[in-house]
Amino acid sequence: MELDHLGIAVRSLAEATDRWAPVLGPPEGPPEEVPSQGVRVAFLGGRGAPVELLEPTSPTAPLARSIEARGEGLHHLAFRVPSVAQALGAVEERGGRLVDRAPRPGARGRLVGFAHPSAFGGVLVEFVEGG
Amino acid sequence: MELDHLGIAVRSLAEATDRWAPVLGPPEGPPEEVPSQGVRVAFLGGRGAPVELLEPTSPTAPLARSIEARGEGLHHLAFRVPSVAQALGAVEERGGRLVDRAPRPGARGRLVGFAHPSAFGGVLVEFVEGG
Repeated sequence: MELDHLGIAVRSLAEATDRWAPVLGPPEGPPEEVPSQGVRVAFLGGRGAPVELLEPTSPTAPLARSIEARGEGLHHLAFRVPSVAQALGAVEERGGRLVDRAPRPGARGRLVGFAHPSAFGGVLVEFVEGG
Repeated sequence: MELDHLGIAVRSLAEATDRWAPVLGPPEGPPEEVPSQGVRVAFLGGRGAPVELLEPTSPTAPLARSIEARGEGLHHLAFRVPSVAQALGAVEERGGRLVDRAPRPGARGRLVGFAHPSAFGGVLVEFVEGG
């Protein structure tokens, strides 16, 4: 399974973009809203695994609660898979908990699904469909 | 700056390797001790940015205290740079705090240096020298 990107939780996308652009390079494009997750995101870092900066768009979004509890910082690891449904099923088969029971639309027009951090020793893992 | 690897803090390298190998593939080689950091590490995930699993080798290692405070999980982000000394200097120049004031030997025989998480909005950033 190949790394697709890694997510960093931030309070302000604008400030975080300024902070990370000197290290990672400019954002791929304008910020994108992902209403299903209550976040606004930007992807930075052209080559290799890009970095996704995620800002909550509402105080009740799960990401807002995560930032409140644990602060800003590394948030999730995303792997590219041929089928998100299959990847989620495989986690469940070996007794791992899921956040998403079925694939749903994520950023950049791709299907995504999250496993629960307990399934991967404290790491929130996202599966992203496609090549 | 290109991503070199990302580090995941684990209590047991053996258990974590079993957990991650189905996702990332087998470890690159046998576990390696990094005495300067009080950790034992394994790299998994051949292509793209590999994942470094880090297990503390002593209860007083900084990593042991980090796991005690925040649990297992995503730990740091490592970028490949031509010069670690220069990268650390650049962080300091723009007012960022450092963990390491000078490069030191890290895993895989490479020079490394850590910035303080406050310098990158809560993300512990490591610079790794080399190509």
